[in-house]
Amino acid sequence: MTDKATRAESLIRDFCAAWERRDLAAILGVLAPDIVYQNVPAPAMEGKDAAAAFLIPIVENTSKIDFILTAIAVAADGETVLTERIDRLYYGEKLVDIPLMGIFVVRNGLIAEWRDYTDSASAARQFAALKG
Amino acid sequence: MTDKATRAESLIRDFCAAWERRDLAAILGVLAPDIVYQNVPAPAMEGKDAAAAFLIPIVENTSKIDFILTAIAVAADGETVLTERIDRLYYGEKLVDIPLMGIFVVRNGLIAEWRDYTDSASAARQFAALKG
Repeated sequence: MTDKATRAESLIRDFCAAWERRDLAAILGVLAPDIVYQNVPAPAMEGKDAAAAFLIPIVENTSKIDFILTAIAVAADGETVLTERIDRLYYGEKLVDIPLMGIFVVRNGLIAEWRDYTDSASAARQFAALKG
Repeated sequence: MTDKATRAESLIRDFCAAWERRDLAAILGVLAPDIVYQNVPAPAMEGKDAAAAFLIPIVENTSKIDFILTAIAVAADGETVLTERIDRLYYGEKLVDIPLMGIFVVRNGLIAEWRDYTDSASAARQFAALKG
């Protein structure tokens, strides 16, 4: 891998680790000011404030987070990082398990684009069951 | 990239091209006999016959297919290929647009694992609209 690709992969590995520490400063610290963040096919959130408004409650409302990287690879451009993950959110005794793939574009040491792909109905059913 | 990684990426690029040609022989020709194919989180289909039973009608029922690769990358193992794609299925004048990510594991020149991640409700709504 090129140095650029190695740095991009490390940044995303660190980002996943920051989720597992529920370290909001580290999570938000690598989002570009003009990040475009999308849970496809929902509309994209544009800008760090919009992304933060979505992400902060996830950290604040959970008791534990696993962000399990099952695969990671960097495209030939050295800045596009593709992942397969299981995002596991714990709410006390209950948990929501989200198998997904995500793509990140790293520019100037920050995440400029982030798109996650998962089955939203499956996640929604699990969130609904939390209230049961 | 290592030669192994280059071969794995080429195989997946060729596989996508085979879909665009609607070339069933080429599509089925690179599936391993024991392939595990999954549209996550639906149950995995195990074996080439099960995968073929799902895939053949897609080719037979469409008038045109685009399998647009928007990103592709090979993991450090040289055999795991991650993609971001738009799979676009044409049914005469109508089309179904499926934005997704997929992961392939290539072993011995064949696809041994294939998992696609997308929002199934969005795809289902589009398929339902075809009948409208």
